[in-house]
Amino acid sequence: MKSPAPTPPYPIADTAQRIQPFHVMKILGEAKALEAQGHDIIHMEIGEPDFSSLPQVHAAAQQAMKAGHTHYTPTLGLPELRSALSDFYGHFYRADVPAERIMLTPGSSSGLQLLLTALLNPGDKVLMTDPAYPCNREFVRLLQSQLISVPVTEATRYQLTLPLLKAHWQDGIKVVMVASPSNPTGTVIEADELVAMAEFLAEKGAYLLMDEIYQGLVYNRPAESILSRCADLNNVLVINSFSKFFCMTGWRLGWIVAPTFLIPTLERLGQNLFLSAPTLSQYGALAVLEPDALAELEQRRQIFQKRRDTLMQAMQEAGLSPRICPDGAFYLYWDISAFSDDAEAFCLALLHETGVALTPGTDFGDYRAQQHVRLAYTTDEETLQRAVEKLKGALRKRAPLSHNSD
Amino acid sequence: MKSPAPTPPYPIADTAQRIQPFHVMKILGEAKALEAQGHDIIHMEIGEPDFSSLPQVHAAAQQAMKAGHTHYTPTLGLPELRSALSDFYGHFYRADVPAERIMLTPGSSSGLQLLLTALLNPGDKVLMTDPAYPCNREFVRLLQSQLISVPVTEATRYQLTLPLLKAHWQDGIKVVMVASPSNPTGTVIEADELVAMAEFLAEKGAYLLMDEIYQGLVYNRPAESILSRCADLNNVLVINSFSKFFCMTGWRLGWIVAPTFLIPTLERLGQNLFLSAPTLSQYGALAVLEPDALAELEQRRQIFQKRRDTLMQAMQEAGLSPRICPDGAFYLYWDISAFSDDAEAFCLALLHETGVALTPGTDFGDYRAQQHVRLAYTTDEETLQRAVEKLKGALRKRAPLSHNSD
Repeated sequence: MKSPAPTPPYPIADTAQRIQPFHVMKILGEAKALEAQGHDIIHMEIGEPDFSSLPQVHAAAQQAMKAGHTHYTPTLGLPELRSALSDFYGHFYRADVPAERIMLTPGSSSGLQLLLTALLNPGDKVLMTDPAYPCNREFVRLLQSQLISVPVTEATRYQLTLPLLKAHWQDGIKVVMVASPSNPTGTVIEADELVAMAEFLAEKGAYLLMDEIYQGLVYNRPAESILSRCADLNNVLVINSFSKFFCMTGWRLGWIVAPTFLIPTLERLGQNLFLSAPTLSQYGALAVLEPDALAELEQRRQIFQKRRDTLMQAMQEAGLSPRICPDGAFYLYWDISAFSDDAEAFCLALLHETGVALTPGTDFGDYRAQQHVRLAYTTDEETLQRAVEKLKGALRKRAPLSHNSD
Repeated sequence: MKSPAPTPPYPIADTAQRIQPFHVMKILGEAKALEAQGHDIIHMEIGEPDFSSLPQVHAAAQQAMKAGHTHYTPTLGLPELRSALSDFYGHFYRADVPAERIMLTPGSSSGLQLLLTALLNPGDKVLMTDPAYPCNREFVRLLQSQLISVPVTEATRYQLTLPLLKAHWQDGIKVVMVASPSNPTGTVIEADELVAMAEFLAEKGAYLLMDEIYQGLVYNRPAESILSRCADLNNVLVINSFSKFFCMTGWRLGWIVAPTFLIPTLERLGQNLFLSAPTLSQYGALAVLEPDALAELEQRRQIFQKRRDTLMQAMQEAGLSPRICPDGAFYLYWDISAFSDDAEAFCLALLHETGVALTPGTDFGDYRAQQHVRLAYTTDEETLQRAVEKLKGALRKRAPLSHNSD
């Protein structure tokens, strides 16, 4: 009974067993092994800011500990943080979002799960793009719901559009999920397109679930929220996070904005699923919404923008042909079809040849996933340039693939 | 579309809509309203220690912030904390639990959800006692699984026994859930009984999911873990928490111990459900497992023991006839059938008459739930005595119910 048998000694749930591992974990494991052997590895596979959280956040958390604020908070979150987020929407997005519609969650994964659990019956359909953030698919499957994947290409900057949505519409779709800026592509959906989709879905009686986790991290354009335009639509749900723009990944804190009628259900679900979000993180988040902290975060945003520009330019000069310039997040989704038809083998080979770690497209879906990789610019400009040089050197040795690259 | 219509403007999932609110929330709401009016309220409804987390924990968290440890940890948790927990089992419970079998979770709610999601297919059956911790039932329902409730009484100290388990056994049961010490009853299951149940379930190919969240908080007896006896059984799963004995509720950190063959599935699930447990909480937990912190927690345990003894004695002297002396946790499950057939009305009336807030039994199940309330001794001895005096005064005025109380 104790041997690592190929079949488990006791049964595992079918859906759980079918959950995909993150393929990048294999790359990460190899990268760590190479590092342990003394090799220099450039990590461009990591989906979190290299910056630590701000000193202001640390001071606020310390203050909260001293004051004995180490107990549970209400399930919906600290009232003062819900109010601060309401003000945040008012000040920065001219969006009227009452605090009552805002709920803190232990990370945005939890927010995503909470919303989908509140909405989906077994068999309900959820539409999303391929590629998309991998957990989206898994949550839908865990809820015994049905996934409708819409393959997207450079033609729509890898995003859903109203025409695509209409073309793929079918009865039984209850939720449509979009992300702007998107992981893995870094592209945004223009506000008018979003509003048009939200209104189309309102007519159909379906929800638009909007991932704004990378909100704030956009370049050469103002940050936006769908709530500036659709705050009064009862079918629009927003997920956000203190992890990315606010650089608080390890604090595990996110929030959701939902229509008022859903809040009691979400509160009851939250009581069961997590009780409350981490208390110190909530006190820390109060500090990160203050002007001095936001000013420092704006500086970090500018650093990410420079990194994006540096990476794009270096790739172009190296002939690595990135076709889409990302608008935000810290990702570049790179079509590698000129070099490979097997993204996982490609990433593994490049890691060994160059020490550069990338994420294979297969982590984000099926559609042309073996012909894409994700580059994260979560390292400094000099390192990014060095990485591109290395990639260029390795790829120059390869015979280009003979097929048409699109 | 914006009016608060009785039917939601967009559909809510059936299971989510059926989730029960915590009935105690109504009591808590009324209690807060009374406090706002200047009334003196004694909170005996609160399920968390009144103690804040220890200064050692705060120092460790501060140190971690300073060192920039504010990023994600591995999904299974900080390797050093998994090792520290392995040592903890070795030192205190003489249990051989390799670090590889231990996974940190963001609170034990999350651990519970993780394990049940890993095990249950829709339609699978889960057996548990009535009364039990309310979230257990809800998780089973959310997974579209089937709940088998075993009504338990004082005769078995409100616990499952091997004879009860055999009597209620039926095909399709995949998981049996027990808690020792239990919320809401504070009673424990003796080790021999547990082992016998675990072995019976092993024969049946079913899991024993053991809630040890209140482990360590036991009185006049040594703390125990099923892992001392059943560490080699592949069907035994343990949930634990830093919230109760370790007084770290707001830090949202728990852990699970699972057989090795389940760990890859749990890791993949965890990547999707929560990514990683809060980082500072994990560094804080490293400090709380050190001898100096454990010595302070032992003093707190002794304080809870004195409170239990004070509460029991005061109730006995007041003729409030608590029939079962709890072995652990910080709860007393009180049969109020001599006074009421409606626990919710009883709690509400007592709150208004005496200012003492209690939790109605209906939060923990259906079986004789209206004839029980839960008292939490998470306040000091003097307050507990004062509470009992008030309850005595109010109940003396009531005509006792005429039915047989059991």
